[in-house]
Amino acid sequence: MSKDNKNENKELRITADPLSKFHMNEEQLRLELVKAQYALRETRQQGQATGLLVLVNGMEYSGKGAAVTQLRQWVDPRLLNVEATIGTVPSKYEPIWQAHVAKLPRHGNITAYFGNWYADLIEGALLLMKQEKSKDKEGEFEAWEVYLRHQLNLLAEFEMDLMNNHTKLLKCWFHIDEDTLKHRIKDDKDDPEWLYHMDWQDKKKVKRFNKIAKVILSQQQDWIILDGSEPQEITENKSKKEYKDQGYSEEANLQFCHEVLHATQSALLSSQQNDSKHPLVSEITRNINAAFSWADIPDKLTDIDDPDMGKTNYQKALAKKQNRLAELLRARADYKGKEGEGEPTNHHVIFAFEGMDAAGKGGAIKRLVAPLDPREYQIYNISAPNRMEQQHPYLWRFWRRLPEFSPTLKEERLSRIAIFDRTWYGRVLVERVEGFASEAAWQRAYEEINRMERDLAEKGTIIIKYWLAIDKQEQLERFEERKETPHKQFKLTEDDWRNRDKWHEYVQAAADMLARTNTKQARWHVVATNDKRTARLAVLDHAIAQLEKVIKI
Amino acid sequence: MSKDNKNENKELRITADPLSKFHMNEEQLRLELVKAQYALRETRQQGQATGLLVLVNGMEYSGKGAAVTQLRQWVDPRLLNVEATIGTVPSKYEPIWQAHVAKLPRHGNITAYFGNWYADLIEGALLLMKQEKSKDKEGEFEAWEVYLRHQLNLLAEFEMDLMNNHTKLLKCWFHIDEDTLKHRIKDDKDDPEWLYHMDWQDKKKVKRFNKIAKVILSQQQDWIILDGSEPQEITENKSKKEYKDQGYSEEANLQFCHEVLHATQSALLSSQQNDSKHPLVSEITRNINAAFSWADIPDKLTDIDDPDMGKTNYQKALAKKQNRLAELLRARADYKGKEGEGEPTNHHVIFAFEGMDAAGKGGAIKRLVAPLDPREYQIYNISAPNRMEQQHPYLWRFWRRLPEFSPTLKEERLSRIAIFDRTWYGRVLVERVEGFASEAAWQRAYEEINRMERDLAEKGTIIIKYWLAIDKQEQLERFEERKETPHKQFKLTEDDWRNRDKWHEYVQAAADMLARTNTKQARWHVVATNDKRTARLAVLDHAIAQLEKVIKI
Repeated sequence: MSKDNKNENKELRITADPLSKFHMNEEQLRLELVKAQYALRETRQQGQATGLLVLVNGMEYSGKGAAVTQLRQWVDPRLLNVEATIGTVPSKYEPIWQAHVAKLPRHGNITAYFGNWYADLIEGALLLMKQEKSKDKEGEFEAWEVYLRHQLNLLAEFEMDLMNNHTKLLKCWFHIDEDTLKHRIKDDKDDPEWLYHMDWQDKKKVKRFNKIAKVILSQQQDWIILDGSEPQEITENKSKKEYKDQGYSEEANLQFCHEVLHATQSALLSSQQNDSKHPLVSEITRNINAAFSWADIPDKLTDIDDPDMGKTNYQKALAKKQNRLAELLRARADYKGKEGEGEPTNHHVIFAFEGMDAAGKGGAIKRLVAPLDPREYQIYNISAPNRMEQQHPYLWRFWRRLPEFSPTLKEERLSRIAIFDRTWYGRVLVERVEGFASEAAWQRAYEEINRMERDLAEKGTIIIKYWLAIDKQEQLERFEERKETPHKQFKLTEDDWRNRDKWHEYVQAAADMLARTNTKQARWHVVATNDKRTARLAVLDHAIAQLEKVIKI
Repeated sequence: MSKDNKNENKELRITADPLSKFHMNEEQLRLELVKAQYALRETRQQGQATGLLVLVNGMEYSGKGAAVTQLRQWVDPRLLNVEATIGTVPSKYEPIWQAHVAKLPRHGNITAYFGNWYADLIEGALLLMKQEKSKDKEGEFEAWEVYLRHQLNLLAEFEMDLMNNHTKLLKCWFHIDEDTLKHRIKDDKDDPEWLYHMDWQDKKKVKRFNKIAKVILSQQQDWIILDGSEPQEITENKSKKEYKDQGYSEEANLQFCHEVLHATQSALLSSQQNDSKHPLVSEITRNINAAFSWADIPDKLTDIDDPDMGKTNYQKALAKKQNRLAELLRARADYKGKEGEGEPTNHHVIFAFEGMDAAGKGGAIKRLVAPLDPREYQIYNISAPNRMEQQHPYLWRFWRRLPEFSPTLKEERLSRIAIFDRTWYGRVLVERVEGFASEAAWQRAYEEINRMERDLAEKGTIIIKYWLAIDKQEQLERFEERKETPHKQFKLTEDDWRNRDKWHEYVQAAADMLARTNTKQARWHVVATNDKRTARLAVLDHAIAQLEKVIKI
C-alpha cells in the first residue's frame, strides 16, 4: 500500500469513529463491535459487499493469542473466523500468497489470520540468513534482505489488489521489549502460547527475527504496532502470574479490539461508495481511468486465414506434434534432470484459452491432452462465478485453481498442468462488454492480471495464452451445425446468440486485452481458427515452441 | 452395499435403459450421455438432486486413463469432473475416507475419481504385507488381510451412507491379464500412463497387488469389472503401436461409457422417487421405519437442578479445572510421550455442544477455551447449511471440518481440537422438528452418525458430547435479559421464539437422540444449566474425566 493510501485511510477512520477510543467504555465497545459486524454482513444484501482480513503477526510471547481471545469474547463469534498457519519455508514453485488464499474472508465476514504469508516470508528470510552466516558473505544488502525486500514489494501489491477488490486489510504487529520477553520465557510451560515458542530461548534467533521485523516494519508503513510489553510497576505491585492470567497487557488487547472496530467501520464506509469513486483506488487505476485509450484492432483478429488442410497430412502432423508436446510436458516435472545438465527442471504449466464462441477451444484442448493421461492435467471450464466466488476478489476463483506442488507426495506430479477453457480474462471480456464489472474495475484488472501472471512466472510457471480467432460467417456456420447435430446441441445456448450480436464490442475488448496483457512473461498467441485442422496444429506448434524455450530436451 | 441392493440396482438398470448396449451406436450413445448429464443437472431444480461418483480403480496399464479420456470426449466436459489421487499410506489418525470427502460430487454433477480411498487402502495393505514377509508369520488370515477386510467393511458402510444421501456410486475395476501386462510394460516410456507405473516391473509387487485385488473384489460385490486385456488377434493382425494409439481396448472404453450412462440414468430414477420410498434405502433403515419407537423422556431433560454457586468458590474452582483441562489437552498431542511410558499419545479431540437456545453453549465454550491459545483449537458455529452444502450428503459439511493431522508439518499441532457449537445432531433435532428432513432421512441418521463417530473413535479421536439442559422458565428469563442488554441483542432472533413454541417436540427429539446415539465410543453428557456457574464447572469436569480415560498424566 502506498503512503498516500495510508493517509486516506487515516482520514476515513476519523470520520468513521468520532468517539476517540479513550472515550468508549467496555460496554460501548462491545456494542459497537457487534453493530459493525452485523452491518458488514449486511453489505452482502446492499452496497458492495466487503470483507475484513486482520493479519496477526509479530513476536511470540507478545499476547497475540490473548488479544484475539478478547476479541472473540466481545463480538458475535459466529461472524468471526480465526485461522492460523505456522510459518513454513515458502514453496519454490508458487507465489508466497498462494498457499493462503483459501483462507481469505468471504465478503461480509471478518477473519483474524495468525501467521499468514508473513510467517512464511520470515521463515524464508531466516533460512537465507542462516545459510549466509556459514558463507561469511559481506555486502550492503545481504541475500536475505534482497529476498525480503523484493517479496515485501510483491506482497504489498498483492494486498493492494485485495483492497481494491473489497477485501479490506488490517495489519497488526505485536511487539514486546527484550525485558518482557526475558520475563515471559522463564515460565514457558504454563504459557498459553507455549506451543509456538519452541526455540525463542535461542537469543540468536530472536536477534535474527528482530532484524527481519525491522525491515518489514520500515518498508511497509501500514502496520499497526501493538506494544504488549509489561509496564514496570507489574513486577513491583502484581505477581507475574496474576498479570498473565489477565491475558497479559489489557491495554494491548483493548487497542487491538479498537483497531478491529475502526477497520470494520472503514470497510463499511468504503462498501457504500461507488466502485469508481472508491477512496482506496490506487494511483495506477486513477491514471488509467483518466485516459483509457482503445487499442487499434489488429488485422489478425478480423482477417482470418482459411486454408484447407487435407486429412491425411493433418493426422500425420498431429500425431508427431502431440508426441513432442507430451515429451516436453513430462520433462517439466523431471526431478532428476538430465545427467550432467545441472539443476533438475520443475515447472508448472498453465494453458489459457480465450476466443469467441465456437472458435474451437474445446477441440483444441482435446487434441492438446490426447497424448496425456487424465491424471496428468486438470481442465477447468470457466463459466459464471457462483455466489461464494462472487463474494471474494474476482481473481480468487482462479487463485484457488492454480497448479500447486504437493509437499506431501514427493513423487506426485498430478494436477500440475492446468488448462483453462476461458480464464480470468473474462473480467476484461464478457464482464466488460456485458457491464458485470464497473469501468474502474475492468480497467484496473489489466494490471492486476499482469501482476498475478508475473508472480507465477517468477516461480517458473510457464503460461501459454491463446486467442482463437474466427470470423463472423464461420461462427454462424458452426452454430447452425451445432443446432442440427443432436449430440452437439448442448453446446449452443441463448447466450451464444446474444454474444454474437455484440461481435464488435468483443473484438474491441480482445484488442485491448492483447495490447495490455501481452507481457514478456506471458505472451498471447492469436490463432486463426476458420480451418479447424490448421488451428489445432498451430496451437500445438506454439505450445511446443514456448516449452522449448524453457525445457531443453 | 448389501447383495439385495445390488439386485435392485440391476433391475433399475433394465428399466432405465431399454436399449441393450449392443444396440446403440456411437452417435446414440453420445446423445444419451449428454441428455442424461443435463437431466441429472436438472435435478437441482426439481426432484431430489443426486450426484454420481465414478470410482476408477484397478491395475495400471489397464486403460483406465484411455477410458476416462473417451468419456470426456463424448460428454459435455463442463459437467464432468475428473479427480485423481495417488495412493498414500492411510493416516493413522483419521478414517480412510476423510482425505477424500472434499472431492465428492456436488448433487447434479458427475465426478470420475481415480485412486480415491481404495488406492490408499491398497497402499496400506501392501505396506502390511511387506512388513509381514520379514516376520515370516503364518496363520489363516494374515495381518494385512485382517486389516483389509475390516476396512472394506467400514468403506462399504460409508458408501451405503453416500448412496442413501443422494450420492450414487459406480465402482469400476479395470483388469488385464498377465500377458497383456507383460506386453505393455515392455514399452513403458511411450505409454500415456507411464507416470503411474513406477514399479510395476516388479513381479512381486504385481503378485501382491493381485492378492489384494482378489480380496476386494470377492468381498465387495458391487464392482463392475472391465477387462482391458488385448485380444489375441492384436499381436497377429495389428501393430501394437497402432492398437495403443486407439487407446487400448475400444471395447473396454465403450463398456465404461455405457456403464456411466446406466449409472446416470439410475441416479436420475432414484432422484425422482420420494425419499421414504427410495429403492436403495438400506435394510437397516427399513427396519427402523417399520417401528420407530419414541424414547421415554428422562428426568434430567426436564427436571433441572438449580443450585446457586457463590462467585468466589466458582472462580477458584474454575481456574483449577481450566488448568487441568489445558494440561490434558496439550498432552494429547505430545509426540514424544512421557519417558518410559511406551507409545507416544496423539489424539484428535472433538467437543460437541447441543442444547436449547440460551442454554449456555457459548458461555461454556468460552470457559473451555480460555486457557488455550486461539491457534490451538477451531470453533465451528453451525447454522443452516449453505447451498453448496445442501447439494452434498448432509454430513459432508461436518466431514470437511473434522480435525486433520497435517502431514506437511511434523510439528504442527494446530486445529486438532475442534469445538462444535451445534453439530451434525441438527439432523435429528431441528431438521426433524421443523420437517427439513424426511422421516426416513432423520430416522436413518442415528445410525449414520453412529457410524461416523465409530470411524473417528477407531482412529483415536476423543469425542465429548454435551446436552445442555435448561428449563422453560429459565430460558424465558434469559431471552428477556438478552432483549434488554444492547450488546447481547444479536443473540436473540425470531427463530428462538419460534423454537420455544415447539419446546416439547425438541425435548422428545433430544430424548430419542440420547437413547439412540449414546454409544460407548461417544457418550452423551447431560448438564443442568439453570445455574450457569455450576454448569460451566460440570462441563469442565466431564471433559477432564473423558480425557483422563485416555491420557494418563
